[in-house]
Amino acid sequence: MIAIDLNADLGESFGSWTLGDDDAMLEVVTSANVACGFHAGDPSTLWRTVHAAARHGVVVGAQVGYHDLAGFGRRFIDVEPEDLAADVIYQIGALAGVARAAGTRVRYVKPHGALYNAIVGHADQAAAVVAAVTAYDDDLAVVGLPGSAFLAAAERAGLRTVREAFADRAYAADGTLVSRREPGAVLHDPEEIATRMVDLVTSGRIRAVTGESIAVQADSICVHGDSVGAVGIARAVYEALTAAGTRVRSFVE
Amino acid sequence: MIAIDLNADLGESFGSWTLGDDDAMLEVVTSANVACGFHAGDPSTLWRTVHAAARHGVVVGAQVGYHDLAGFGRRFIDVEPEDLAADVIYQIGALAGVARAAGTRVRYVKPHGALYNAIVGHADQAAAVVAAVTAYDDDLAVVGLPGSAFLAAAERAGLRTVREAFADRAYAADGTLVSRREPGAVLHDPEEIATRMVDLVTSGRIRAVTGESIAVQADSICVHGDSVGAVGIARAVYEALTAAGTRVRSFVE
Amino acid sequence: MIAIDLNADLGESFGSWTLGDDDAMLEVVTSANVACGFHAGDPSTLWRTVHAAARHGVVVGAQVGYHDLAGFGRRFIDVEPEDLAADVIYQIGALAGVARAAGTRVRYVKPHGALYNAIVGHADQAAAVVAAVTAYDDDLAVVGLPGSAFLAAAERAGLRTVREAFADRAYAADGTLVSRREPGAVLHDPEEIATRMVDLVTSGRIRAVTGESIAVQADSICVHGDSVGAVGIARAVYEALTAAGTRVRSFVE
Amino acid sequence: MIAIDLNADLGESFGSWTLGDDDAMLEVVTSANVACGFHAGDPSTLWRTVHAAARHGVVVGAQVGYHDLAGFGRRFIDVEPEDLAADVIYQIGALAGVARAAGTRVRYVKPHGALYNAIVGHADQAAAVVAAVTAYDDDLAVVGLPGSAFLAAAERAGLRTVREAFADRAYAADGTLVSRREPGAVLHDPEEIATRMVDLVTSGRIRAVTGESIAVQADSICVHGDSVGAVGIARAVYEALTAAGTRVRSFVE
Repeated sequence: MIAIDLNADLGESFGSWTLGDDDAMLEVVTSANVACGFHAGDPSTLWRTVHAAARHGVVVGAQVGYHDLAGFGRRFIDVEPEDLAADVIYQIGALAGVARAAGTRVRYVKPHGALYNAIVGHADQAAAVVAAVTAYDDDLAVVGLPGSAFLAAAERAGLRTVREAFADRAYAADGTLVSRREPGAVLHDPEEIATRMVDLVTSGRIRAVTGESIAVQADSICVHGDSVGAVGIARAVYEALTAAGTRVRSFVE
Repeated sequence: MIAIDLNADLGESFGSWTLGDDDAMLEVVTSANVACGFHAGDPSTLWRTVHAAARHGVVVGAQVGYHDLAGFGRRFIDVEPEDLAADVIYQIGALAGVARAAGTRVRYVKPHGALYNAIVGHADQAAAVVAAVTAYDDDLAVVGLPGSAFLAAAERAGLRTVREAFADRAYAADGTLVSRREPGAVLHDPEEIATRMVDLVTSGRIRAVTGESIAVQADSICVHGDSVGAVGIARAVYEALTAAGTRVRSFVE
Repeated sequence: MIAIDLNADLGESFGSWTLGDDDAMLEVVTSANVACGFHAGDPSTLWRTVHAAARHGVVVGAQVGYHDLAGFGRRFIDVEPEDLAADVIYQIGALAGVARAAGTRVRYVKPHGALYNAIVGHADQAAAVVAAVTAYDDDLAVVGLPGSAFLAAAERAGLRTVREAFADRAYAADGTLVSRREPGAVLHDPEEIATRMVDLVTSGRIRAVTGESIAVQADSICVHGDSVGAVGIARAVYEALTAAGTRVRSFVE
Repeated sequence: MIAIDLNADLGESFGSWTLGDDDAMLEVVTSANVACGFHAGDPSTLWRTVHAAARHGVVVGAQVGYHDLAGFGRRFIDVEPEDLAADVIYQIGALAGVARAAGTRVRYVKPHGALYNAIVGHADQAAAVVAAVTAYDDDLAVVGLPGSAFLAAAERAGLRTVREAFADRAYAADGTLVSRREPGAVLHDPEEIATRMVDLVTSGRIRAVTGESIAVQADSICVHGDSVGAVGIARAVYEALTAAGTRVRSFVE
């Protein structure tokens, strides 16, 4: 039986500002990428989120990012690698502390936003994130883009790597994501998205924006938590996968 | 043989701003209250500080405070208890993560600045800090003012409590500290301070600002890290205690 | 013809987090209390908000608060008066700069949240806010609670004072607001609220939570921007006032 | 009589953290680049700094930077141009507000750190800073590197541009600054620096690190405020220039 993980970004509220419908998403996903306070997520939000994840039996990961609340971690920052490593360790530790107090724990690390994108190719920042995870706990898995400098460095360091596909994003013919600045980069139709994900999981292939069928390897599918209709898309993907006989479960099981 | 701990606030630099002479203090003290990023201490500073503490064999504690960089944690904030508890857990976790990555660990918690002062009497905030420590790890000790609501709540919760005296502060006849707003509240002469601390440790008594000899119980002496002449005072205290036959060692030994 | 101002808190989004429906509120209110970045409102949000206010012909005021994003300015902070004065000047200046670049200007100052509540009675912080406004521009009006230390100090300093009533809040028999911690403190029914405001404006009286009719003087009515149904309430108040022959216009006209 | 301006970065303390000796620098320089709170400078520091500048008759400029306290504005951030423009307007306005309350005003804008370096070549961010200054007040001058995209865009927009040389930095043969990562990039000897600056001002030429005499045009000389020996270097430059018959005065006179 084929199995796949569904992950989503959660815990991204901050103080009086609410983002996403975490409770609804936790009914669907198997992995929760919980913000750690640097791009989103105040301590009380983290506390509520890890409790809710534990209640739903959803695995908790640390969604680490640049220190940039106003930019929501979506702007590249040219941080020195040693500072970035310290930032990542700090964030993992903070979430792990909250998780520990809530009776659960952090099982993986997924970089967020501009950091995620930067370490597809930025070798020094990729190495810094890997060094941070390794120094903190080399039993943690890392989630990233297949073919990225990040996953390559993580593999060399002996970390468990989780290759990720994006449910609501268009792919170019070379297997990279179409930039959000291009038209058609983000998909919105739940049925179309669900069908694509079933194809991906059952055949290892997906249709590129230019029409070709391309190979994409994925251990986890990211369903975005903060877009309009996010919950509807996540549910459609979950139900289509289940209907197709796929087991939706965490990659740490 | 009488024994006593010496603690100091360390890791209170932030980014390009340096505060205190941490390396010199680490040669004298036995417990390092390391800032956790909320009132001071960026992740790289924490990283350097826990490494330096480990190198000097100094025990690491989490110096948790209000989230107020501009105020250096020295302004009371009327945080809701549940938010304060989450803030404290987050800070302990963050420092514990950095300590873990550096091969050491956090052994105690000492509130900082306005939070320290608030929970002498503010029962709700005191309870929140105790609840946070207990939820995170009830093997952690807590450092506070003898007679405070904080230490009382910590004792009721079964935490190990460490009563603290202040080397450079004048005491009132009732055993409380003279307010910094009063003249003579802060002592500056290393010899006078050292003599007072030897008296305190060997006799359990200290001279109040009004002349009386009063009883003060202390398991640890705080030598401030950020005042002018801080290192000189710390050294004078250490040397006088040692010369008087006192063993200076961490309270966790 | 009786006239009254309607004010609302606007520009309280931050980065990726949206709060309130500013565009809809700007169609109803005559004064926009625009956040200045300390409790909410990043610079791009300020920019968009003052432009939108200018487009709607709505007067712009500086909604100054404690420096506390995570707490949304709703937690009392024991800031030294001279620091608070500098904080207030900084915030007014920042918003005035954005307003100037957008071709408009700041006409009044309204403290936000915990600062608003603190300076009902906290004489030192009240004096600090008044000193800040006076130093910056003594042509600015200030909005506050009738009977507050703040408005009293502002009057003594020769500032124009604007007395404020709250559309969706219950009043005690002594004319103060019922604490949000009490049941029934916040009203939700648009029709009831609208009727109360018409009574207030036409008779200078309102019914207290205990049933008495009490005198309340108001130059402006605050319709909250961030509660559920805020826009509906604001519209109901506006329409009822207009239907009753009241002219809704800014207090600076 | 030849004239030149001396500028330094001031007001870069933050809360309890002190940086530089502003009072001593204000006795030497003619232009104070005052931090605006985004990379350094809390409101109370700004308040003290503009007062001190006014007392010394030193012209105040807004030293605008990326929003990055932990990085002191020294890390490139890939901010969207429209957000950067809003950030710059906000910072100018904030400092202008403080200056106004202190009875003085802002006369020019100088980008700080990584922003300064980025807009040597980054056309979009350069245009954003120019657009911000123009929208706020096109009577403000801008200080930047000769030949930079920033000064070129500012000139096209009709702003007054001030070309800057660096007292303590080595120059490459092409007139650019030697990177701080190269050995010899930063000069430390006050006499050598003073002699170079006299040559620069009187002949329009300076010796490059590779030995050539190159042309460098400067309307203002930056003496760094935060390096070791900064005040000594500034005084040496001032005295050597004066002894050589140069008039040291602000570029706005």
